[in-house]
Amino acid sequence: MSIDTKRPHFERVALVGVGLIGSSLARVMRREGMVGSIIGCARTEATRAKALELGIVDEVTDDPAQAATGADLFILCTPLGTYGDIMAAAGPMLAAGAIVTDVGSAKVCTIRDVTPFLPEGVAFVPAHPVAGTEHSGPEAGFAELFQDRWCILTPTPETDAAAVDVVAALWKRAGSKVERMEAKHHDLVLAVTSHLPHLIAYNIVGTAADLEAVTESEVIKYSAGGFRDFTRIAASDPVMWRDIFLANREAVLEMLSRFNEDLARLQRAIRWGDGETLRDLFTRTRQIRRGIVDSGQASNGPPKPPR
Amino acid sequence: MSIDTKRPHFERVALVGVGLIGSSLARVMRREGMVGSIIGCARTEATRAKALELGIVDEVTDDPAQAATGADLFILCTPLGTYGDIMAAAGPMLAAGAIVTDVGSAKVCTIRDVTPFLPEGVAFVPAHPVAGTEHSGPEAGFAELFQDRWCILTPTPETDAAAVDVVAALWKRAGSKVERMEAKHHDLVLAVTSHLPHLIAYNIVGTAADLEAVTESEVIKYSAGGFRDFTRIAASDPVMWRDIFLANREAVLEMLSRFNEDLARLQRAIRWGDGETLRDLFTRTRQIRRGIVDSGQASNGPPKPPR
Repeated sequence: MSIDTKRPHFERVALVGVGLIGSSLARVMRREGMVGSIIGCARTEATRAKALELGIVDEVTDDPAQAATGADLFILCTPLGTYGDIMAAAGPMLAAGAIVTDVGSAKVCTIRDVTPFLPEGVAFVPAHPVAGTEHSGPEAGFAELFQDRWCILTPTPETDAAAVDVVAALWKRAGSKVERMEAKHHDLVLAVTSHLPHLIAYNIVGTAADLEAVTESEVIKYSAGGFRDFTRIAASDPVMWRDIFLANREAVLEMLSRFNEDLARLQRAIRWGDGETLRDLFTRTRQIRRGIVDSGQASNGPPKPPR
Repeated sequence: MSIDTKRPHFERVALVGVGLIGSSLARVMRREGMVGSIIGCARTEATRAKALELGIVDEVTDDPAQAATGADLFILCTPLGTYGDIMAAAGPMLAAGAIVTDVGSAKVCTIRDVTPFLPEGVAFVPAHPVAGTEHSGPEAGFAELFQDRWCILTPTPETDAAAVDVVAALWKRAGSKVERMEAKHHDLVLAVTSHLPHLIAYNIVGTAADLEAVTESEVIKYSAGGFRDFTRIAASDPVMWRDIFLANREAVLEMLSRFNEDLARLQRAIRWGDGETLRDLFTRTRQIRRGIVDSGQASNGPPKPPR
């Protein structure tokens, strides 16, 4: 590999998926002068047109194989369920020395789906920037999205070490703090810090929408009492999240069953008027919040895009 | 009643509980020049000293009876479980023409606990400002907390109409939009828009804290993936929330069992790889968020207190 692992520069980046994360990453690479040209790959004509219009990419295609041709960096920024098909098409066109990476929220399945299609001499560095908003599409992206957030890399023992350094350098230039983790552990950690919260949020918003005795307009009107915060999360991209739950099924189901056990205990405490159990838990959870505030992860932090 | 129902002025307000909501309301009444003097009633010496130091109240006491003496407005801003004892002490000291009101998050129990202690000629106007933050105490309050939020009044058919107008006028001066509702319906609406979300948030934060395979520091580090938003809610005042769940038990348990049924369906969909069910729900919940954004209830809106 001839690339500078500390300050990498890519001649030609293939960005497969130009949504919130993909377009934000493209903006970072432009801002940092890390890239010669970017080819954006998207299925829909509207997305391709928007990505060109915003100047996020230099050219567009709907064909992963064409995107892969001549690319020294190939980045998957599409829903997890698409990885296999994309790599089946793109793999044969990737030249030795190219690096494949991704931004998916589950990693065991990513490694499983991508690895079989890697030609000799092409490294795959699984990555997951823990950042996002509830908005989707190329226009939702912004270069500061990853600032002060964590990006988790989950290379296997076989992954080319220099390629891992290159991808780590890319994320550091995005302002992220980079951590390495075993893929299976990543999936467990994210099941609790991200996937379960999303599932619960989607569920409660659905429950509220289905009530007969309370109208949807009442739910909306009085949402400031707590519900509101769940709706933000439950507005996240439906296809992306469907794929995450299916891809990380085992860990999500494990976390969900623990959640259910704990909830049954609270339900019982409410039914029997056991105030001690409630108060004890509510006091304990306050500490966790304090930890998050102290760690600087409490707010969305840096600049939000104008909307 | 001699008070101006449109632009009420109170000679002497008794503020029982000087926490986030109570101290914010006191700040509003000062700002609007609606009050002669305010006596703050609090159990702990530290709270009384802080309320005096911040100039939120003119005098303090730990005795509800003393607070009630000579008060033309008596406001309960303490956890729901304290109402009965406070009113048992304060009731006999309330003079005819005085108005009692509160800010509690459940209303059926409030009416049940307060009404028996009202002397002849004293009106009780149950009120619930749907606003708050995760912070507690006199120093957490700020006058803009209620701006553009809803305040729900739940008078019974017996409640003095002029007293209801006075309390409505108070909340309008706080910047709130005022709605009247039957107490039982209020408790159902708030069970879904506020109580259930808090219960779920407390529960998931507890589940995360108890994991063996994922450390608390990992949970904190990667909380930006969605978990973070739950911790904010789960940092709300433990005693206040214990009392809400116990006070609104029936409605909370009803909402919780619907939530559980819906969650079991999602669990099954994940286990069996039923992507359609997941995607359909996730698409539907997005609409609700849109309604909240359109209604102007999406953000915490107006000024936050410096912290």
